[in-house]
Amino acid sequence: MHKNDTMSANRTKPARMPERVNSTDRAALGHLLRETSVGHFAFVEDGRPVVMPIAFALEGDSLLLHGSTGSWWLRRISTGIPVTASVMTVDGLVFARSAFESSMRYRSAVLFGSCTRLDGEEKLAALDVVTDSLLPGRRPELRAHNRKELAATMLLRMRVDEWTFKNSTQWPEDPDEDIAGDTWAGVLPIHTTYGEPLDSPDLRHGIPVSASARQLAGRHRVTTP
Amino acid sequence: MHKNDTMSANRTKPARMPERVNSTDRAALGHLLRETSVGHFAFVEDGRPVVMPIAFALEGDSLLLHGSTGSWWLRRISTGIPVTASVMTVDGLVFARSAFESSMRYRSAVLFGSCTRLDGEEKLAALDVVTDSLLPGRRPELRAHNRKELAATMLLRMRVDEWTFKNSTQWPEDPDEDIAGDTWAGVLPIHTTYGEPLDSPDLRHGIPVSASARQLAGRHRVTTP
Repeated sequence: MHKNDTMSANRTKPARMPERVNSTDRAALGHLLRETSVGHFAFVEDGRPVVMPIAFALEGDSLLLHGSTGSWWLRRISTGIPVTASVMTVDGLVFARSAFESSMRYRSAVLFGSCTRLDGEEKLAALDVVTDSLLPGRRPELRAHNRKELAATMLLRMRVDEWTFKNSTQWPEDPDEDIAGDTWAGVLPIHTTYGEPLDSPDLRHGIPVSASARQLAGRHRVTTP
Repeated sequence: MHKNDTMSANRTKPARMPERVNSTDRAALGHLLRETSVGHFAFVEDGRPVVMPIAFALEGDSLLLHGSTGSWWLRRISTGIPVTASVMTVDGLVFARSAFESSMRYRSAVLFGSCTRLDGEEKLAALDVVTDSLLPGRRPELRAHNRKELAATMLLRMRVDEWTFKNSTQWPEDPDEDIAGDTWAGVLPIHTTYGEPLDSPDLRHGIPVSASARQLAGRHRVTTP
């Protein structure tokens, strides 16, 4: 996938803050897409906008989406119509000395592309990538898919043709006359972490928490760069 | 705003899990919209889908959006074209005994409507609602807006005509033969919390952290119902 300046300038004209101007940092985009498991996927239906949250995994320059074959919106975007996805994480609140300068620290990506449906070996491989991404370390603890489950699951690859990425890591940027005042200014970071594993009510007695869940427990889910 | 079953059935056909079928719980929708400060707003531009993250505040049955008057997408949706917003929070990972049954606990809303631009007294009042929502308790600590700041800020009200809401609070739902096995199953909760306030590099010596930031520090940003 590549950043197309002409298209991105057309579609996402930079906001007023220099820090928020589209970055060419492909590595930072990858970082955001790897640790953010849900995107908001938009398409056009009867001339009107539809947008749905869908879990995804990053694979190279594509996103892998999966879901039920009964999902009408997955079926709709599987036809190859234009799809745009928005992925964002809020990393902190910026307490400036005026409401006007107050803002957020965030990372945001908008991805333009289209989807194709995967089948056969390609679908099986993609399912593994999705599982490893959404539940790291879990796959070796699970049995293989059965035929019925595979038939009920749709796998789509969204090829990303263009993207924009914004990374706001700013501090308050107040005018001198506000800095000279008595108002505190700073940043309140926001952390997303995993809590302690909860046993399923139907868990048989004596089965310990699996390694994959233990490894994640207490760890940051989203890490700021 | 009201839930239109005909439209919502058309636009967001229920997923396969009964727990994920559209809920009529208006209170739970309000809860999600109050504690989730960013939505992903989609519209149609030249026949193609565009979707952008925008901070919002809930006011009655409407969402209030604000941003720079220089933002082309805010100007675009201010014309009253159809806008659809997706708001979601992931509350946990569901570790089932197969990849197929594994999923997430989440709350998700899709809101259909259109925007109008606010001016004069209405704009001033809406700005206060937005500030109080995005930075609770901060407004009394800040000076008033000046004329230049107001002129550079756009305020939109999105009237929500229809909505769907899904609340997945499920535990693993495995078939009996999987429950009989040795694989652990359960839920790993996800918490979003505020960290400790960080002073701005340009903060004058001796100014203590303000009450609004102190009050949020260490608290959950997103609370599961």
